Amino acid sequence: MPQPRADLFNETCPSRGVLELIGGKWSLLILCSLRDGPVRTGALKRHISGISQKMLTQTLRELERHGLLERIDHGEVPPRVDYRLTRLGRSLQTLMSGLERWIVEHYPRMRDAAAKSAVTESPRALRG
Amino acid sequence: MPQPRADLFNETCPSRGVLELIGGKWSLLILCSLRDGPVRTGALKRHISGISQKMLTQTLRELERHGLLERIDHGEVPPRVDYRLTRLGRSLQTLMSGLERWIVEHYPRMRDAAAKSAVTESPRALRG
Repeated sequence: MPQPRADLFNETCPSRGVLELIGGKWSLLILCSLRDGPVRTGALKRHISGISQKMLTQTLRELERHGLLERIDHGEVPPRVDYRLTRLGRSLQTLMSGLERWIVEHYPRMRDAAAKSAVTESPRALRG
Repeated sequence: MPQPRADLFNETCPSRGVLELIGGKWSLLILCSLRDGPVRTGALKRHISGISQKMLTQTLRELERHGLLERIDHGEVPPRVDYRLTRLGRSLQTLMSGLERWIVEHYPRMRDAAAKSAVTESPRALRG
């Protein structure tokens, strides 16, 4: 039986969980970090400043579980583990990198708008 | 003096806050809901099932504050308030709609991968 089409606007659709995973900042930063090829766990942690070991491990595991990343254990001592994008992950990474570029390009305008809004704050906003 | 370029990989860069705002599921669903023109607050709430009045108000306010939306108060009694995308918001909405389409298209593969992973769960995963 064909499955119903995913509908993010419907709170009972399980695709909402995927939106939360993909929308999370750590997912975007991890996917973008793997753009140029496999990366070791330690290198990911250094590249993405502020991520805790726990959040890195959890997010990598969720992205792997949903088929976006592959974990490559080289079976060496000391352990060497890389992560790389699957084909599905690469197609998402293209969108994520677009979003990263958009933020870097437009961040100054958003920052200026927020600063201006703080100065001209209306009574509505102050009450809210 | 020119501002340094935004760097999402640096935890001290305030653009991280913008990433959290934009990455939030409610922001994506609101931006996509405004794709075809201004929408009243009540209609947004009905369209985005599961959003609380508080989250809707907060997210609209943050998107407005950062220059992505405009609030249009028609000054009528009873009050009629619409939200519409600014030019900046429209450029982000294009990316967000691309992400929404990607999820709808690829959700079944992610769901199947997660289901398969649950069946073949490795001792590593069970320990984790």
